Amino acid sequence: MGAGYVHGYDDRANERLRDQARTLVDLLHHDTAYPAGSRVLEAGCGVGAQTLTLAERSPDAEIISIDVSATSLAEAARRAEAAGVTNVEFMQADVFDAPFEPESFDHVFVCFLLEHVERPVAALELLGRLLRPGGTITVIEGDHGSAYFHPDSEAAHDAIRCQVELQRAAGGDANIGRRVYPLMTEAGFDDVRVSAREVYVDSSRPELVDGFTRKTFTAMIEGTREAAIGAGLIEPERFDEGIAALYRTAEADGVFCYTFFKGVATRAVTI
Amino acid sequence: MGAGYVHGYDDRANERLRDQARTLVDLLHHDTAYPAGSRVLEAGCGVGAQTLTLAERSPDAEIISIDVSATSLAEAARRAEAAGVTNVEFMQADVFDAPFEPESFDHVFVCFLLEHVERPVAALELLGRLLRPGGTITVIEGDHGSAYFHPDSEAAHDAIRCQVELQRAAGGDANIGRRVYPLMTEAGFDDVRVSAREVYVDSSRPELVDGFTRKTFTAMIEGTREAAIGAGLIEPERFDEGIAALYRTAEADGVFCYTFFKGVATRAVTI
Repeated sequence: MGAGYVHGYDDRANERLRDQARTLVDLLHHDTAYPAGSRVLEAGCGVGAQTLTLAERSPDAEIISIDVSATSLAEAARRAEAAGVTNVEFMQADVFDAPFEPESFDHVFVCFLLEHVERPVAALELLGRLLRPGGTITVIEGDHGSAYFHPDSEAAHDAIRCQVELQRAAGGDANIGRRVYPLMTEAGFDDVRVSAREVYVDSSRPELVDGFTRKTFTAMIEGTREAAIGAGLIEPERFDEGIAALYRTAEADGVFCYTFFKGVATRAVTI
Repeated sequence: MGAGYVHGYDDRANERLRDQARTLVDLLHHDTAYPAGSRVLEAGCGVGAQTLTLAERSPDAEIISIDVSATSLAEAARRAEAAGVTNVEFMQADVFDAPFEPESFDHVFVCFLLEHVERPVAALELLGRLLRPGGTITVIEGDHGSAYFHPDSEAAHDAIRCQVELQRAAGGDANIGRRVYPLMTEAGFDDVRVSAREVYVDSSRPELVDGFTRKTFTAMIEGTREAAIGAGLIEPERFDEGIAALYRTAEADGVFCYTFFKGVATRAVTI
């Protein structure tokens, strides 16, 4: 981690994550609500893109949101305060060294974190220990290999592959979505249920064309330009051709598809 | 069309299409039911893989199912009779030269046909003329470019690309699913609504592992072996490596994803 391209650390990235959070809220979160009084750990809250949604959908749960980045946490806290959210406590902490007692949470929620983690199974195992037996863990991840579009473009796929390579070089996996089931299973959770949540965008859905195709996915890939070229992964002209092709899919006859994966599982009563 | 690999013309292919039809019925057809008394054209019924489902879900509609292949039609009719279906009439006819009066149908249903057609917009326009104004057309297509899996394998993608190339050489498009929206729009239909229907398969869904990953998708790609090697598209060892990698995704820690697209639109009242 720590490469310049990793999202969440500059204003444009923050804006993009907020856009993404808005357009994808229903797709990703409509079936997540925690009961009154339950204690929920959000691991890797970043700038709080998911935190407000979590808090609004579970207004009587007690949510602890942690992140390694003090800068991100400050932004998350500022936004929570602005939204009048009162049931979230923010704490600076690393998932691999979190200052919580074993079995001290009823639920754990992890969104867009494992893609950046070198040892995702170890992270899940540690989070599992924080859960009371019978508690649930929810994991949401994207998968850049799930992106396809019309008109198709090899240059666009090349540009996307740069992001995948950069994230891999930083120890992560931008194609992790398809692995949510095996990762959660390997980490020892029970009753792992994963669902694929495909974002399908054509011009009959202008909010998604703008909010997802342009401002989320293409902007994210575009944001890796300097890092990708600097790392010698691609020629500038080819990269720009790929980005233009991605924007082209946002036109009237264009189509863009991308899939997120959501897994829910239970901590076994006997681990 | 007419290349040896095209599905629907031998027993193994028929069995595969029946398996596919069983496991995907709900995903693809749960929202298709035509009212009593409506006249429905199924264009390109093949061996009737979708016909029985159509007939069962719209028991009081009058369904006319056409196909160019007399062999396929005979099989479709045999199966309809065996299932006790009485509301379907089978006719040998080409979509591009169908013996029907303009505006003589209330609904048109097209499933896995356009992928084989050289001029899909022209086919849709002709079908549109058979619809009464205000009638609906439903189009279902897959997209081989939507296939991704864990463990990932370049050899598997190479093997899949052979099918895409063979279908292209025969005038079709195995990646047509993503184009359903622009095709239906270009053909002049109103209120085009397309939804992506992703088949997500992990080992918690053993019926799909067997019925879809193994017996539908991988069997279909495997069925192109001789044609692909004969056309010089791939070395035998590489092809076999790709097929083995696809079967590998059906093991306990494997995941397989594929998306179908379903479009529904209306014939404009004034064309």
